[in-house]
Amino acid sequence: MMNEKLKWLFSPGSVAVIGASDSFDKLGYHVMKSLVKGRYRGAIYPVNPKAEKLWGIRTYPSLKDIPGEVDLAVIVVPAPSVPGTLQECGQKMVKGVVLITAGYKEIEDSQGETLEGEIKEIAGRYEIPIIGPNTFGFVNMTDGVNASFTYEFSLIKKGGVTLISQSGGFCHLCGFLAMEERMGMAKLMSLGNRVNVDFPEALRHFIEEDDATRVIALYIEGLDEPRGLLEMARSMGGKKPIIAYKAGKSEKGDSASRFHTGSLAGKYEIWKGALRQARILEVTSAEELIDTAKVLDVCAPIKGNRIAVLSGQAGPGMIAADALEDAGLKLAGFTTTTQEKINELLPPVAIRTNPVDMGPAWYSPKAMLDILKVTLEDEGIDGVIFIAMFASANLEVTKTMEGLMKDIEPFKKPVVACFTAPAGVWDEEIKRMDGEKGVAIIHTPERAAKAMGNLWKMQLIMR
Amino acid sequence: MMNEKLKWLFSPGSVAVIGASDSFDKLGYHVMKSLVKGRYRGAIYPVNPKAEKLWGIRTYPSLKDIPGEVDLAVIVVPAPSVPGTLQECGQKMVKGVVLITAGYKEIEDSQGETLEGEIKEIAGRYEIPIIGPNTFGFVNMTDGVNASFTYEFSLIKKGGVTLISQSGGFCHLCGFLAMEERMGMAKLMSLGNRVNVDFPEALRHFIEEDDATRVIALYIEGLDEPRGLLEMARSMGGKKPIIAYKAGKSEKGDSASRFHTGSLAGKYEIWKGALRQARILEVTSAEELIDTAKVLDVCAPIKGNRIAVLSGQAGPGMIAADALEDAGLKLAGFTTTTQEKINELLPPVAIRTNPVDMGPAWYSPKAMLDILKVTLEDEGIDGVIFIAMFASANLEVTKTMEGLMKDIEPFKKPVVACFTAPAGVWDEEIKRMDGEKGVAIIHTPERAAKAMGNLWKMQLIMR
Repeated sequence: MMNEKLKWLFSPGSVAVIGASDSFDKLGYHVMKSLVKGRYRGAIYPVNPKAEKLWGIRTYPSLKDIPGEVDLAVIVVPAPSVPGTLQECGQKMVKGVVLITAGYKEIEDSQGETLEGEIKEIAGRYEIPIIGPNTFGFVNMTDGVNASFTYEFSLIKKGGVTLISQSGGFCHLCGFLAMEERMGMAKLMSLGNRVNVDFPEALRHFIEEDDATRVIALYIEGLDEPRGLLEMARSMGGKKPIIAYKAGKSEKGDSASRFHTGSLAGKYEIWKGALRQARILEVTSAEELIDTAKVLDVCAPIKGNRIAVLSGQAGPGMIAADALEDAGLKLAGFTTTTQEKINELLPPVAIRTNPVDMGPAWYSPKAMLDILKVTLEDEGIDGVIFIAMFASANLEVTKTMEGLMKDIEPFKKPVVACFTAPAGVWDEEIKRMDGEKGVAIIHTPERAAKAMGNLWKMQLIMR
Repeated sequence: MMNEKLKWLFSPGSVAVIGASDSFDKLGYHVMKSLVKGRYRGAIYPVNPKAEKLWGIRTYPSLKDIPGEVDLAVIVVPAPSVPGTLQECGQKMVKGVVLITAGYKEIEDSQGETLEGEIKEIAGRYEIPIIGPNTFGFVNMTDGVNASFTYEFSLIKKGGVTLISQSGGFCHLCGFLAMEERMGMAKLMSLGNRVNVDFPEALRHFIEEDDATRVIALYIEGLDEPRGLLEMARSMGGKKPIIAYKAGKSEKGDSASRFHTGSLAGKYEIWKGALRQARILEVTSAEELIDTAKVLDVCAPIKGNRIAVLSGQAGPGMIAADALEDAGLKLAGFTTTTQEKINELLPPVAIRTNPVDMGPAWYSPKAMLDILKVTLEDEGIDGVIFIAMFASANLEVTKTMEGLMKDIEPFKKPVVACFTAPAGVWDEEIKRMDGEKGVAIIHTPERAAKAMGNLWKMQLIMR
């Protein structure tokens, strides 16, 4: 029953905003903005007893006055009026709730805990799944539903990564990094105080019910009962790759977690082992989370750890080579056939062994592309890191970049690329090709190597 | 003598471009573009026997036809004609040379080595310092001299960081990252094959002779005689902070270095110890190099390792707290006075101990600023990490950000900030305040913590 309702919650045909507003300093303003400017295509029902129209949309004094069905209610009214509002949601047979309002279990005042108990009881009685309280909401990029107070998340590219987070702030950090790095997302959500939708429920939903989700990223601060999450992850049996960022590692961070979401972060060392056993790959920074999720979403699976580095400049190729070995990968030797072909394509002045310095082929995009293809054909190579730094003289490389897309997909091997240029120079080409045909573009050579390493680690976890 | 000439080389009153061109596919075109579009204020003398005017500037058939003195000659003619050209430079009493042409010691053909020997001999005879061969050149942001084939480096912000690199590709990577991260630079150079200007000469110059350089970053692949660099660094006695990125750590990377710049990278473990002994702080990625150099350049010195984290959102504050401890810093407790003041500024719903969650003060930029000031006044706090994620509802935070600048300088403590927002939202404010009044803005909470940690490590190295 709750499982069925979660589908309606995340892809609602109609949304009521309880506490809708047209004044900028109210969260009800920003939720309305997210739905309206985020181009939500279902019915929007603003609820506010003091207005007849908000955002140009007919407004209702209360939930029960809304004529049609309400699939999702987003609640932003003050904490003490939430139990009454939830009761109304139950009576109206609302299928799901996003409860943005804060001031419950996470505050020092014991009244918060009492109120949260009430909410839980009402939600249970009417079987309403609740995201929150104390959440920024969720964003469904797949269907264009921004049920959060941050409109800008509607600008994130559509894709296969879903982030289930225990912190709204972390969603903001990752959401903006995702925009910068052109990572495609399916859903973005903060669980808040997890009154009845916790990690296991969300994880099950996105693995079992949401085809658009291909990769799951978790941000975990602390859980009183981590077993539910871990067992759910394990039972999903490697159906979709799951990565996790565990915060609250230090003692102080741990006590901050206690206040933030009302639960202890717990001993990090225990978490580390438990994640591994649950087939979850741990990442240790927001940028690593973004890079890894992106590569897992767009690249072909990797079958081994033998990597070739092809770089337009020797230095960046060398640092990628160093970083590869740190990431558990190997710089592979080429077969004789491959080496002979590369020797034909590159003059002796170049470094023609792995990591290859394609410098002398700078002015021949065709030669660079041919080197890439020859390398992908090599049975001893499982993946390629392709690097090019812009220089005033090599605008031609743009053609190579675009060419990459068209030809490499049939090889079914991961290609992680790093194209570095001043703002505005290659932006359009990078935007067009990133994520297409199995190529992921990653910000620096070191991060490209690390992301490729995580692709391999995930392969080991999932098989 | 050579020392005196290096000053002219890096800040020339006149530049001759030998091999100047107006066709896009020649490096001589791009060097001209760098000087002209980069707004070099001295005299430019294009040299090309086949043209009378290039880039609208009178062009000379050879060096000796130039009427005035030539401080710097940038040479892009083919390798075999370089010895003759250098001879002419000597006769013309040119003070310094940038030799972009490649094809010497780094190539497999033994002719390269012979030619390089000739060059060295001529340079020695006339006492001409040469940057290169096999270099992209150098850029002097301080005085607006772009003697390289990449015009776009002229867009880098002016500042105190000088990068001395053994790879031109790495200069491109770091230069573009510097632009993205608004890092101010003094000079950017690639040594190339180091015929007579090597790390020790460049290091001495930028420490002793260049006031604009406040921080030195080195990118090292491998040196046959590392002692010169290490002894020079040590003898400079901590006059300016020096950081280094050592590439070619792996065996394969090492052999790539052999081809790239004609010298072995050498055992990494030995390098690690040697750098430490030479009072050089090692960094291990291009992004860490940028972040660390920037913080060293713009922040006040740090006197201890007790840090406060003030964050607009709990999650990003927690991950900064975790990263701090990994970076060798400590999350400090507040004194009773500080704690009492923070308790007045923040309601009990907030996390008021370190890491502080300023969430409830979101709508009061004044309260956020007051918390920052109270924390900086605390004698038990040596530095502050200040974090704010944009959300649609908190545009007001912009005011806090701008306010930061005006008030925090008198405290003489480092403030590393992390302001994350979608492109276009806070860009102007971030640009205005970054690097001003002791505030460095770093891309993510984890990187902010790492950069602050490196500030402390450098403090330990230099004292």
